[in-house]
Amino acid sequence: MNPIRALAAKDAQSKLEPFEYTLGPLQDDQVDIEVQYCGICHSDLSMLKNDWGITSYPFVPGHEVVGKIAAKGIHVPLLEIGQTVGLGWYSASCLACHNCLSGDHNLCPTGEGTIVKRHGAFATQVRCQWIWATPLPESLDPVSAGPLFCGGITVFNPMVQHELRPTARAGVVGIGGLGHLALQFLRKWGCEVIAFSSNPNKRDEALNLGAHQVVDSRTSTDHLRGALDLILVTANAPLDWEAYLALLAPKGTLHFVGAVPQPISIAVPSLIAGQKSVAGSPLGSPATTRSMIEFCTRHQIAPMIERFPMSKANEALEHLQAGKARYRIVLENDL
Amino acid sequence: MNPIRALAAKDAQSKLEPFEYTLGPLQDDQVDIEVQYCGICHSDLSMLKNDWGITSYPFVPGHEVVGKIAAKGIHVPLLEIGQTVGLGWYSASCLACHNCLSGDHNLCPTGEGTIVKRHGAFATQVRCQWIWATPLPESLDPVSAGPLFCGGITVFNPMVQHELRPTARAGVVGIGGLGHLALQFLRKWGCEVIAFSSNPNKRDEALNLGAHQVVDSRTSTDHLRGALDLILVTANAPLDWEAYLALLAPKGTLHFVGAVPQPISIAVPSLIAGQKSVAGSPLGSPATTRSMIEFCTRHQIAPMIERFPMSKANEALEHLQAGKARYRIVLENDL
Repeated sequence: MNPIRALAAKDAQSKLEPFEYTLGPLQDDQVDIEVQYCGICHSDLSMLKNDWGITSYPFVPGHEVVGKIAAKGIHVPLLEIGQTVGLGWYSASCLACHNCLSGDHNLCPTGEGTIVKRHGAFATQVRCQWIWATPLPESLDPVSAGPLFCGGITVFNPMVQHELRPTARAGVVGIGGLGHLALQFLRKWGCEVIAFSSNPNKRDEALNLGAHQVVDSRTSTDHLRGALDLILVTANAPLDWEAYLALLAPKGTLHFVGAVPQPISIAVPSLIAGQKSVAGSPLGSPATTRSMIEFCTRHQIAPMIERFPMSKANEALEHLQAGKARYRIVLENDL
Repeated sequence: MNPIRALAAKDAQSKLEPFEYTLGPLQDDQVDIEVQYCGICHSDLSMLKNDWGITSYPFVPGHEVVGKIAAKGIHVPLLEIGQTVGLGWYSASCLACHNCLSGDHNLCPTGEGTIVKRHGAFATQVRCQWIWATPLPESLDPVSAGPLFCGGITVFNPMVQHELRPTARAGVVGIGGLGHLALQFLRKWGCEVIAFSSNPNKRDEALNLGAHQVVDSRTSTDHLRGALDLILVTANAPLDWEAYLALLAPKGTLHFVGAVPQPISIAVPSLIAGQKSVAGSPLGSPATTRSMIEFCTRHQIAPMIERFPMSKANEALEHLQAGKARYRIVLENDL
């Protein structure tokens, strides 16, 4: 068996360097994916630096994968060798717990993360349980599709989970890797879409991506008081959450997908009077991911990407870290 | 027109004293209710002391009313003179806003409160818009029914709003006027019911009311980690909310109906990982109130009450203030 060529960091302070490893035998329910493209997510950076205390080294990042099935176990349904698939944050679920049995494999308490205590997709190959390898239709551009499997599904999932209606008004806080996809999804969903951004340079792009209006959250938002059914927070910064709650319509939800590190403080009467809620969610289930891919195909939704060769992953990571990525970086595999 | 005999406080420091007043002509969409019974709610105390800064004096408390229609306007459908009805916190809605048109009259931004800038039901009569006078079936005991229209609907509403399933596990925090009704509702709803109380004297009663288990929240709750689909907070005290979030199952909701005065602090990752939410709601709509009354009739659900003559309302208020009410006080009208 040829070794897998990858890029790994040996500790939290190091840059990525060439690294080779071999995997054990393929399990019956697993596939090996020959990595063609891999997006870069902020969580790759967080894991690289062990911000969450769960990183094991040598660490191989990469969990926004597009590639072809290179090998499959004997109990893998539907997928065929050579088929193009996508893979995101999750790489395995138990399939047996109440959540898995309910279709919520993304909430499996013993689920496996693609870059958690195993090697990710800054590599020639990556392995996963078949259920997390999502078939990519030919009509979807494989080069830009990778970010859908992490950034995309993260913002698509709450729309499905909250049974968001096309008649709703929805806000998106933070127009970056996640937010720029949320704007596209919401616009095609039929909603009125409001983008919140304090960066005037993003205004025109936000409108092009689907926003009906772009609001600088530092200035007056009075015209939106009580107007929004859903506010999707993709930013990781501490903002004035009470002010956002005031923008919610009755029964509205302030929904977090960005792991804002500071605890948020909420006045209970603000929730009670308008029957409001504050919620959060991780990435979506395999079924929701497949629905998202169908929706993207139907509506020609794709991430806006910048390309780097995978061999220049360190430069790409610096570009992301500097806040310069517009809006997602995809590495083209040249390892 | 005979004056209405009532009990009123002349300022935030005063006890209730006899007070007479007359109302103007009945509007076309209004009814006058001859008050027979009136429950006492904690919010009567809060309003009496102007805790929320919205009280006008002389202040007549009382918004858990059972009585008979004494007069009706010419545009009042369905209700008849002499019919027994209940009235709660709300006494009018605009009927024209998006919320009212959607059936969410309880979320009407210009809705009127029975004891807000008008006189309540510690009185021989009280007036309201017809939509908020809920018919009481003969099979429901009118003496104890009053508290359903405020305390009852407050805890019944979130069960309806969250489309709570009978297969769910639900917790109730605080076993008082609201909590003792929540236990009964949830048990008859088909749920597994967990009562949280730090008062050992309430243990047996909580079990009798419908709890499958009673948990002292100050001691270990480890066996409930990740187990509860809904936790209904009826307490007004600052508790360890992160600990309650940890008891929620994936997709679970921590729901507040008690206006906890201190802001709650929530770690966003606690919401994201298990797709959890923190929510709140006020009392229910007219339709939900009617559903509750049907449910109470079908399942013989009633508040546990202590009776006082209305003329001894001051003693009754002291009894409530001292935390001695088991579980709701009803005043019998002798004015």
